[in-house]
Amino acid sequence: MIIDCHGHFTTAPKELQAFRDEQIAGLKSGQHAAKRPLSITDDQLREAVQPQLKFQSDRGTDVTIFSPRASAMAHHIGDLTISTDWAEHCNDLIYRVCELFPKNFVGVCQLPQTPGVTPDSSIAELKRCVNELGFVGCNLNPDPSGGMWNAPPLTDKHWYPFYEAMVELDVPAMVHVSASCNPNFHATGAHYLNADTTAFMQCLTADLFKDFPTLRFIIPHGGGAVPYHWGRFRGLAQELKKPLLKDHLLNNIFFDTCVYHQPGIDLLTKVIPVDNILFASEMIGAVRGIDPETGHNYDDTRRYIEASTLSAADRHKVYEGNARRVFPRLDAALKAAGS
Amino acid sequence: MIIDCHGHFTTAPKELQAFRDEQIAGLKSGQHAAKRPLSITDDQLREAVQPQLKFQSDRGTDVTIFSPRASAMAHHIGDLTISTDWAEHCNDLIYRVCELFPKNFVGVCQLPQTPGVTPDSSIAELKRCVNELGFVGCNLNPDPSGGMWNAPPLTDKHWYPFYEAMVELDVPAMVHVSASCNPNFHATGAHYLNADTTAFMQCLTADLFKDFPTLRFIIPHGGGAVPYHWGRFRGLAQELKKPLLKDHLLNNIFFDTCVYHQPGIDLLTKVIPVDNILFASEMIGAVRGIDPETGHNYDDTRRYIEASTLSAADRHKVYEGNARRVFPRLDAALKAAGS
Repeated sequence: MIIDCHGHFTTAPKELQAFRDEQIAGLKSGQHAAKRPLSITDDQLREAVQPQLKFQSDRGTDVTIFSPRASAMAHHIGDLTISTDWAEHCNDLIYRVCELFPKNFVGVCQLPQTPGVTPDSSIAELKRCVNELGFVGCNLNPDPSGGMWNAPPLTDKHWYPFYEAMVELDVPAMVHVSASCNPNFHATGAHYLNADTTAFMQCLTADLFKDFPTLRFIIPHGGGAVPYHWGRFRGLAQELKKPLLKDHLLNNIFFDTCVYHQPGIDLLTKVIPVDNILFASEMIGAVRGIDPETGHNYDDTRRYIEASTLSAADRHKVYEGNARRVFPRLDAALKAAGS
Repeated sequence: MIIDCHGHFTTAPKELQAFRDEQIAGLKSGQHAAKRPLSITDDQLREAVQPQLKFQSDRGTDVTIFSPRASAMAHHIGDLTISTDWAEHCNDLIYRVCELFPKNFVGVCQLPQTPGVTPDSSIAELKRCVNELGFVGCNLNPDPSGGMWNAPPLTDKHWYPFYEAMVELDVPAMVHVSASCNPNFHATGAHYLNADTTAFMQCLTADLFKDFPTLRFIIPHGGGAVPYHWGRFRGLAQELKKPLLKDHLLNNIFFDTCVYHQPGIDLLTKVIPVDNILFASEMIGAVRGIDPETGHNYDDTRRYIEASTLSAADRHKVYEGNARRVFPRLDAALKAAGS
């Protein structure tokens, strides 16, 4: 089985964005746009995920750990009510897609984070999604401001109540920022990768995983700059008198394979222990084109894994075994789906 | 000849920091600390650069393109007068080191940038350093705020008068941030790498080099996350209808080799055209320890280049040829030194 641990519902029916537009218009006019039903039919949802299903079929992947569109989380827009209404709608659509195609999609939730509000406010939505909707994880935004970076680091006690809920539910978080409203940072070309690097370094300098030995983060986009600079990070840990990275961080931090060329995947699989790599493509995500150098989609990451030097046993870990370990609720979800 | 294009004077005599401490104390007390002579002797300077000279000798490198300590530029401290006084002192010390050891060091200057002030204010110091002190380039900070990222992107017209001066003088800039006062960003483990990635993506989304065809940026630390994600950047350029990266950016952007492990250098040399790679070690910089996996210093980057698959001709480009091309004033400086 090939599990893609990083897919977003970037093709949702336009009724979803229409509600979001109402929220934004309401913020501008000062007339709060109340939550209302979206009127999206099951047929619309079936139609909306055809591109993802086709990619799964074409590329020979089986199931996608599916979450709302990351760039649209936009936690910087509005207040907690706005973010909560928006997250609930986005998550409910993911739930419906997972119900319609239970063998193809398993849910991961967007959180109703908002700048200046402690993450405690996201616990209720996390619990709803995991306990009631069968989701197996969440996307945690380390920068709800959207590029201003004014929240405390992920290792600050600010986040601890949320981590307690994650640990209690036994679900991991993918550390994933959203849109950038800072003109310095292109969202998918800079902000995403910077956040990945930043989150890793925050964990390196602190002792978060002493306090939460079973907390698990997936750092997407191949870990940002981290594997490429693995020597730098090993050296910095040494300067800071931290344990070896494998002992200090690699029981808790995992990297996905959203790296869109062969040399990048080859570096990732060479440098990072195989137990810490989870297959992912981010489809349908930031980079949708066909690479003229290969004739295949940039984000057809399975091709790079197949062409890597990983043994069959190691490929099995990357494709399936590690995901089942990092997302312990996945087994039950897949079993319930008859997979 | 082996030219290290990225070295900082991190071992300056304590009299330099004493002046800086006066500036900072003055800011706190409201009593401006005026510029005053530093009283550092030539013998003190000779002593201060012994570690760099020893590394050059031990590692078989010849000359270091030498600039003030990057993390101490701290453009976010004080106003333009503070930054100007500080930059002048730092640059004057670099000049004196270069005069004492003209075969070993060639100068690159710190700029008196300060938040909220246009970079025009740095032109005078750039001209002084190039025309009077014989420097061959500058370090340009894309985020003078120190981690708040509130200046316009490098592609904004805000920076154009400074670029005009660079072009007129025919000197490149290393795009290099300084200390981070944002607790989210560890300086050398996150802020530096993020800035590298950010600067590259800013250039990718814009057409800066159409306006300045001969402007040249060196992106340090191996280009941040860029080479590891080269497929992503190629794909993003394609989505944005930009030319191929080699045509769009690689006549103007160069990467250094400050990547502290063999797999990282192997990726860099495989992915980035050899004409765009400049040898550097950042010594004595962020990572000073010995890698227990190799028994050598992490930042002994010459070893990685030697162990790479680069041909002798390509190694010559990385070690010397490219640096002479990107820093056109280097030839004259080295000739004057008898090198």
